[in-house]
Amino acid sequence: MEAVKDVLCMNNGVGENSYVKAEALTIKVMAITKPIVPKAVQSLFTETDHSIPLQVVNVADLGCAVGPQPLEFMSTVIESILKKCGEMGREMPEIQFFLNDLVGNDFNTLFKGLSVVQEKYKKVSWFAMGAPGSFHGRLFPRNSMHLVYSCYSVHWLSEAPKITNEAGLPLNKGKIYMSKTSPPAVTKAYLSQFQEDFSSLLKFRSQELAPNGRVVLIFNGRQTADPTNKDTCYTWDLLAEALSYLVSQGLVDEGKLDSFNVPYYNPSQEEIKYLVDKEGSLTIEFIDTIELEIGGPNGYWSSPESRIRGHRCFTEPLLSHQFGERLMDKLYDKATQILVEDYKHGKEATKNIGIAVVLKKKKL
Amino acid sequence: MEAVKDVLCMNNGVGENSYVKAEALTIKVMAITKPIVPKAVQSLFTETDHSIPLQVVNVADLGCAVGPQPLEFMSTVIESILKKCGEMGREMPEIQFFLNDLVGNDFNTLFKGLSVVQEKYKKVSWFAMGAPGSFHGRLFPRNSMHLVYSCYSVHWLSEAPKITNEAGLPLNKGKIYMSKTSPPAVTKAYLSQFQEDFSSLLKFRSQELAPNGRVVLIFNGRQTADPTNKDTCYTWDLLAEALSYLVSQGLVDEGKLDSFNVPYYNPSQEEIKYLVDKEGSLTIEFIDTIELEIGGPNGYWSSPESRIRGHRCFTEPLLSHQFGERLMDKLYDKATQILVEDYKHGKEATKNIGIAVVLKKKKL
Repeated sequence: MEAVKDVLCMNNGVGENSYVKAEALTIKVMAITKPIVPKAVQSLFTETDHSIPLQVVNVADLGCAVGPQPLEFMSTVIESILKKCGEMGREMPEIQFFLNDLVGNDFNTLFKGLSVVQEKYKKVSWFAMGAPGSFHGRLFPRNSMHLVYSCYSVHWLSEAPKITNEAGLPLNKGKIYMSKTSPPAVTKAYLSQFQEDFSSLLKFRSQELAPNGRVVLIFNGRQTADPTNKDTCYTWDLLAEALSYLVSQGLVDEGKLDSFNVPYYNPSQEEIKYLVDKEGSLTIEFIDTIELEIGGPNGYWSSPESRIRGHRCFTEPLLSHQFGERLMDKLYDKATQILVEDYKHGKEATKNIGIAVVLKKKKL
Repeated sequence: MEAVKDVLCMNNGVGENSYVKAEALTIKVMAITKPIVPKAVQSLFTETDHSIPLQVVNVADLGCAVGPQPLEFMSTVIESILKKCGEMGREMPEIQFFLNDLVGNDFNTLFKGLSVVQEKYKKVSWFAMGAPGSFHGRLFPRNSMHLVYSCYSVHWLSEAPKITNEAGLPLNKGKIYMSKTSPPAVTKAYLSQFQEDFSSLLKFRSQELAPNGRVVLIFNGRQTADPTNKDTCYTWDLLAEALSYLVSQGLVDEGKLDSFNVPYYNPSQEEIKYLVDKEGSLTIEFIDTIELEIGGPNGYWSSPESRIRGHRCFTEPLLSHQFGERLMDKLYDKATQILVEDYKHGKEATKNIGIAVVLKKKKL
């Protein structure tokens, strides 16, 4: 089977359903989480050994995709360093950004966007590199990174959990993620895959962090102990229902749906705390939950249609790979129909839950 | 006027005239120059202060384009470090490659090719970054690079020299590069632009070099003091003749041809030595001329057609931008006709002259 890293990517940078256009929700969350980055940057300057002043600040954005989000992040970092150095009356260091995403990401478009930042900060000596690869593996040399950031990426698993019975038959029939009706083995398999992936993510980032370096992670999570609550599973349930409809129409093979599970997990704060503690090389400086109203009349999305477009941009590459590109319009049209009905009856999920965490490397 | 960096790039990675396919000549030259890189790598390990062993080796490939060439180079570096560390009985450092080219380069294709190197060196801890930008400006933080390499790129100027008389009228009519019939002001303007560009290239690379770091440059050059000798100018004369034909057919505006000059220069060893000495922060460890038979029955190109395809891959983006994409097939067809005739009468240039130079940062 192909690895997720060969399949998963955001829709590329151009077109109606492109990731660039649908990133608005992420930008909104970035505004909420914005103070986190300047605070992490400040720590770099106040805690570093002053006898060897920081000459280069290495900053990574993991799973940065394309569009305004990585550029916004770069601006925030530059502004924060300018401010801090101004306060301290010290010379600006040089800044080296490493923009990471999977090899399939549209780096050509990403690089073309850099001119926006160039125009804004002509007097700052900064450099931007593309760093292709999976954050489930090593990406950078040891002890090199001062600030590692990731916004809405680390909820992606390195692979979908294997959810079959002893005879090798699928256990999560008609679903593509954990669901209220999934057997316990399904949630167990998902948790287990997340634990493995997140633990190695922590280990690799810790190896790559410079002394006093910080890791800032923002990702989809959940507020409840139950991993199958509505806010967490609603979108995937919706897509599974649309896929089941395509099965009923003879357009999708039932076995293809039954055997498919998305490589994705919404952890809780408690699960994160447990894994950081268990891995042992990092400490949590800050952790918080971000609650965003998305459904209902006061929600973030203006309409069911725009909400489905938002979901499409990050689910389509995966679903298209499994079920075929030619079915995608039908699939998302059906999903829109279902969502419209759910809106009428107030059955849709209304919240998007994010978790923000800042990690620091423990002193040896 | 647009900067060269917005226009110049090799033809992208896919198709009949793509740079990937036409790179065979470069690969041939790389084979000749291959011993230079291992020698530079060895110096890094033998000259570095042994009390602080090198943990990460930072390596840059400037103007790497796409295709087998940057991958070949990476393999050569990894092999050299493996060999040297084996001999010294020391642990392998991590290696970080920075693959540089202009923003318009096809980095997506470049990154996809990295899997070839990944398969070959699974046990070595190496990382590859894309570094978009012009080598006529700063690309990397100060004191960070151990080995900076560039194969067949630094003969490109940051901009075409301005070659007009006092009234602003073009002086290099009917030509697109220096030529036997060009007035002296033309060669003077070209030399002046090269001096400016190469001096700043040296200055920037010197700033970016780590102590004991090396710069290895391989580029088109010339063997004679006269910058308008046949081996140097033949290709551009040929293309100018083909363009003049298009002018005579009313397909190209004469003014467009007269005002156009390619941002390119073939320096001599003496010019390089003079500029390195004048800039002052680097010393020449090694310099040599590479002579490659390209024309005639024993030459590198199997036919005039394949030779024109080879030229097309690196001249088309520039010419297409100035004269229009729709004329490109006509232009290169005409150039092929002229070359076929020249072959018949032994009038074609038969040599490609390259210069290889290794530079070392002077101790402060």
